[in-house]
Amino acid sequence: MTTASTLIEQLAALKITSAGVTSPVQHNAVENVADWKAELNGKSLPDGVTGAPVFTKTLVLKPKLPKSQPTSPVMVIAKDETDTNMTSLAKELKLKELRFANADLLSGFFATEKGSVSPFSLSQVAEADRSNVTIVVDSTIVADSESYIAFHPLVSSQTIFVKSSELLAYIKSLNGFKSYVVVDFAELASKNSAPAAAPAAPKASSQKAKPAAAAAAAEPTTTNTDGIQALKEDDFPSWYQQVLTRSDMLEYYDVSGCYIIRPWAFHVWDSIQTFFDGEIRKLKVKNCSFPMFVSSRVLEREKDHIEGFAPEVAWVTKAGSSDLEEPIALRPTSETVMYPYYAKWIRSHRDLPLRLNQWCNVVRWEFKNPQPFLRTREFLWQEGHCAYLHEREADEEARAILTLYRRVYEELLAVPVVEGRKSEKEKFAGAHYTTSIEGYIPATGRGIQAATSHNLGQNFSKMFDIAVEDPDVTAKKLYAWQTSWGLSTRTIGVMVMVHGDNKGLVMPPRVSEIQVIVIPCGITVKHSDEQRKAIHDACHDAAKALIDAGIRAEVDDRENYSPGFKFNHWEVRGVPIRLEIGPKDLEKKSTVAVRRDKLTKSFIPVSELAQQVSSLLDTIHNDMLAKATAEFAANRKLIQKWEDFVPALNNKAICVIPWCNREACEDEIKTRSANETTLGQPEDSRAPSMGAKSLCIPYDQSAYPPIKAGETKCVQCGKDAECYALFGRSY
Amino acid sequence: MTTASTLIEQLAALKITSAGVTSPVQHNAVENVADWKAELNGKSLPDGVTGAPVFTKTLVLKPKLPKSQPTSPVMVIAKDETDTNMTSLAKELKLKELRFANADLLSGFFATEKGSVSPFSLSQVAEADRSNVTIVVDSTIVADSESYIAFHPLVSSQTIFVKSSELLAYIKSLNGFKSYVVVDFAELASKNSAPAAAPAAPKASSQKAKPAAAAAAAEPTTTNTDGIQALKEDDFPSWYQQVLTRSDMLEYYDVSGCYIIRPWAFHVWDSIQTFFDGEIRKLKVKNCSFPMFVSSRVLEREKDHIEGFAPEVAWVTKAGSSDLEEPIALRPTSETVMYPYYAKWIRSHRDLPLRLNQWCNVVRWEFKNPQPFLRTREFLWQEGHCAYLHEREADEEARAILTLYRRVYEELLAVPVVEGRKSEKEKFAGAHYTTSIEGYIPATGRGIQAATSHNLGQNFSKMFDIAVEDPDVTAKKLYAWQTSWGLSTRTIGVMVMVHGDNKGLVMPPRVSEIQVIVIPCGITVKHSDEQRKAIHDACHDAAKALIDAGIRAEVDDRENYSPGFKFNHWEVRGVPIRLEIGPKDLEKKSTVAVRRDKLTKSFIPVSELAQQVSSLLDTIHNDMLAKATAEFAANRKLIQKWEDFVPALNNKAICVIPWCNREACEDEIKTRSANETTLGQPEDSRAPSMGAKSLCIPYDQSAYPPIKAGETKCVQCGKDAECYALFGRSY
Repeated sequence: MTTASTLIEQLAALKITSAGVTSPVQHNAVENVADWKAELNGKSLPDGVTGAPVFTKTLVLKPKLPKSQPTSPVMVIAKDETDTNMTSLAKELKLKELRFANADLLSGFFATEKGSVSPFSLSQVAEADRSNVTIVVDSTIVADSESYIAFHPLVSSQTIFVKSSELLAYIKSLNGFKSYVVVDFAELASKNSAPAAAPAAPKASSQKAKPAAAAAAAEPTTTNTDGIQALKEDDFPSWYQQVLTRSDMLEYYDVSGCYIIRPWAFHVWDSIQTFFDGEIRKLKVKNCSFPMFVSSRVLEREKDHIEGFAPEVAWVTKAGSSDLEEPIALRPTSETVMYPYYAKWIRSHRDLPLRLNQWCNVVRWEFKNPQPFLRTREFLWQEGHCAYLHEREADEEARAILTLYRRVYEELLAVPVVEGRKSEKEKFAGAHYTTSIEGYIPATGRGIQAATSHNLGQNFSKMFDIAVEDPDVTAKKLYAWQTSWGLSTRTIGVMVMVHGDNKGLVMPPRVSEIQVIVIPCGITVKHSDEQRKAIHDACHDAAKALIDAGIRAEVDDRENYSPGFKFNHWEVRGVPIRLEIGPKDLEKKSTVAVRRDKLTKSFIPVSELAQQVSSLLDTIHNDMLAKATAEFAANRKLIQKWEDFVPALNNKAICVIPWCNREACEDEIKTRSANETTLGQPEDSRAPSMGAKSLCIPYDQSAYPPIKAGETKCVQCGKDAECYALFGRSY
Repeated sequence: MTTASTLIEQLAALKITSAGVTSPVQHNAVENVADWKAELNGKSLPDGVTGAPVFTKTLVLKPKLPKSQPTSPVMVIAKDETDTNMTSLAKELKLKELRFANADLLSGFFATEKGSVSPFSLSQVAEADRSNVTIVVDSTIVADSESYIAFHPLVSSQTIFVKSSELLAYIKSLNGFKSYVVVDFAELASKNSAPAAAPAAPKASSQKAKPAAAAAAAEPTTTNTDGIQALKEDDFPSWYQQVLTRSDMLEYYDVSGCYIIRPWAFHVWDSIQTFFDGEIRKLKVKNCSFPMFVSSRVLEREKDHIEGFAPEVAWVTKAGSSDLEEPIALRPTSETVMYPYYAKWIRSHRDLPLRLNQWCNVVRWEFKNPQPFLRTREFLWQEGHCAYLHEREADEEARAILTLYRRVYEELLAVPVVEGRKSEKEKFAGAHYTTSIEGYIPATGRGIQAATSHNLGQNFSKMFDIAVEDPDVTAKKLYAWQTSWGLSTRTIGVMVMVHGDNKGLVMPPRVSEIQVIVIPCGITVKHSDEQRKAIHDACHDAAKALIDAGIRAEVDDRENYSPGFKFNHWEVRGVPIRLEIGPKDLEKKSTVAVRRDKLTKSFIPVSELAQQVSSLLDTIHNDMLAKATAEFAANRKLIQKWEDFVPALNNKAICVIPWCNREACEDEIKTRSANETTLGQPEDSRAPSMGAKSLCIPYDQSAYPPIKAGETKCVQCGKDAECYALFGRSY
């Protein structure tokens, strides 16, 4: 449960620091707006509050729904004076009827009570329930950019004051909700002169609302259909959430930070597993399974390592009704789980190399905002852990695995990445060095670490005594050289972010559970039963021909759904090719193939289906990769002087700079870029003004002018540059 | 950490209840035997203690080992008067040197201190360390069956008295240790008249030790080699543990009840996954991934269900250094995790059937003795969860899956099982009914539940509101019919127990990571380099021919290891076929194939390798299955009168009885069979005298005389029999 003070911390993190947010005005608890006004009357308001504050009402309404439907409340945030006619609103939202929610719904759903309800109650809604809430914002609030608006920070005995832009930023910062709907109640009333409804002209002359249409254009309204309402370019977080849930990839779960990976997404992970597992077997890596429980004694054995993970470790302390004698950790990664046994198993140089991998779940109890696939408290991954006699072998393997990771992204997901080495600051806790592949999300201009492969050096082997006698020198002890490397379900999130569009998901063909969806089209009432059957048969024949050629094809022959509905259904899910067969196609022994990535049509003769579809799938893959590669390349800007650095970031670029490779300079880059962004640019909640971190030092330095010793200088500090490095805002 | 009082509970559970065990004699803490005798002098001893108690010393010794070796202490349990000469002992145990352990070792390894050391300190040794401990028992203790022996129950301020048989039973009850070694110190001393050692004749005339050889035959001594020392028929628990660890299938882990599944065992699981996953895909089941965390609110929603699991649920209550606001459970199974979302996703009959599966880990924090693969606190499994519109569909699926489970056992693991339905008492918590396959472990005569498939009926759908409108009747609500079904890594344990022999594991060919191991043989110093090379080449050619034919073959061409060493190495690991190629075979263009299951030899011409080996692998599979099937069949005894029931159990049989199918009668069978066993038979720690439970009501009732209504009576209660049921002692 959020408390008023943690809420205020959250608001501060969102840079919502208007007058009164940090120190609410205290007063007696109130139950309605009249009491509230009375309580504040004469109280001294916080310094920043200029002008008369605007009082608001926050209503929680309940539509009439069949009992089998989940509770789907509507929250209306309106100025006190606005006439929020519920009949008109119900009509506008296409709901049967709206009534005030009862105390049970307020307490059960919003963990609040009458009088205390405010927009901030939204943060108390369980994640699993959020997509069922409709949020309505009075257009007069949206239009009023100057006034301070009074709200309760969860309790009705306190009041804070925020501006409308801050209110909207807060709502957007919450995960899992549908986009809010801006409603012009005055216009609604004039539109809906329903007999039962009293004429609902605005009561107050102060209303200078923009027309609802304009407000709606800025903030797309939504009624809950199958399609995607949010625009990728305008409201990326909502877009991402809608694409994931409406494509049936993901479901929000009632434990925060955890998500359900549905079959449509799980197939992607399955494809990655099949490819990668096959490749590492060739490298003689064997699969195994270690426990997910770690005793604290073992977990804490490598100091640097545990310092990196300790704040995120989840602890089991109870079983049944008994307290455990010692708390037991859930693995955040398995170095310390495995290596005591490596020490036991590795007795002689003949026991080396030891190469193990496991596909498992790990737990990192992040307190930052969770995000499906990208930052979750439990996630699936593989972790490889190898031990070698020689440094060179560990070097080579770390790179070989990194290359496999790149191939997963490029060859399966059609996502370009850059191979490189992490800076000292950004390397894995306890590693000798870390290599990574780095991706790029064009919509936000942020880099993303796509996978890492570490040469652990001898750090862990010394700590855990993984050592053998030198086979060449008697009585000389050699510590093993180790690697560890991991690839997680984050892959899926990156794939969605890079390829998705405003119609939904765009699935790279090689990982799509269905590669071709065959849809019977053009059947009308005038067609005979034989004609219908002929078309359906043609669809199934086409699918069979494709399946026989190893292509994953299905027919959508559901009755009672129009072709248009089906087109939309499969577009949202991103199926690479839609194959349409109608009466005319049947005559011409042809089919219509529609590419999901470009939405272009082509005609494929039935006789050439398997061969042409197969090559079209490859073309789609190559085109998707080429497009994303061009976009990433165009946004990797070579920056030669600091003045260009922050403007490039603000322009959604990743910066390539000649760099001195010093941690102090890296810190400075982060601080300076954060400060300058905040100073120079208007705040934009969608592209947060975070500082730039080093992403990697690319292995391929040849794309840039050679570094000349003593001549090429670091862009930030002016010291001698050592290399080119990628810096950017990142996930 | 064990405390004295929990130790006493453990001893009571082992039926070690000798005089003084339940209420130790309290005294001042002592540091040596002299003080101890003084402390007890004049104290009134517990009632049962007759005769003068025997005082003992428990010594912890440390052999000199290279630093890279793990700590491997030797514990000597001897009568106080026995001269435990360390030099002789070291020689006998083939150790370099033995010294007294220091305080660090006592506290770090045994969690004890000088003066408090006793055999009971063994229960404090971490599981991972146990296999490194050598336990030596003075033969004069073993021989003295009458006296009460004094020991400290973990603290030196208390004394309990046990008989020697109870001491040995206690030691055997501990998991993870090598078998203890019985040593006749008197004989050692006479054998080793080493110059430095003082002549070590027995000091006390009371010694009537059996010769060490006899003791050793009864309790096989062990020096830590690669092979299996314990005999399957004599000491099944030690045998099982040795087979698992020495075949590199499993490693003990430092969190109790958790184990490391090493690649040699994981490949078995992998093979099962590949087969079963392919089969359920044909049934249109899709894979997905649900979180392992469950909120208590959701977990507790189905009352019967949670009652079944609550005592074993592990709870996360802390993350980093913060307490969670609400404890979160780790899934023991996923019904309540998944079904709230089934309710959300299933809105219309068109959303049915919904068929999902996940391969994952689950946690059941059992407080009973853990056992690798069979009863572990975390285990791997698949769990399928389907929802249907009609009862019939759920019935059919539950059975279809059960048949797949049977096929996993029979077709992959060569293990016979019986398909049947569980009694009401034994069904899954919350299910409508449970079907299961039941296996049989000949060595212990116990049944084992091998997998279960449940028809959940509408119990969960009513609780979670998984309902649709009847497609045929307007406004009629239909609750879904559900199934859930699971197969776990228990499979591996059953496979090992059924097939293993006194040489180690016997791997069923279809799941063995290596099916054929090719070993160059017969090379001596008189052979030329060319001859050596020719043999090695022939081995690699043979392996290649096999691999090309889809057979998993490898060459063991390690230098410095004799063929005999290699034979033993792969026999312990159970590789189905050993292929030997020596100089004479080379001449004859032949090979020698040795079957692991029967240890028989045959000659296979090089030209027919692929074909003959392939068919030999099938023969081995069929022979293994046939042998186990015959053994199971021979031990399923049709019992017609109660007097034969317990004798059959004691004879390691499973009883098939005409049964009334009433829970009260089932309870009675358990109680009666337990009581009669204890009364009639001598106690045997290896075949525990537990009562018989119902295993299943076999689907195939045709093997037994038809049940005649009103005529055929229940064997236990004499009421009308409804069916034949399998009863037995079970895991």
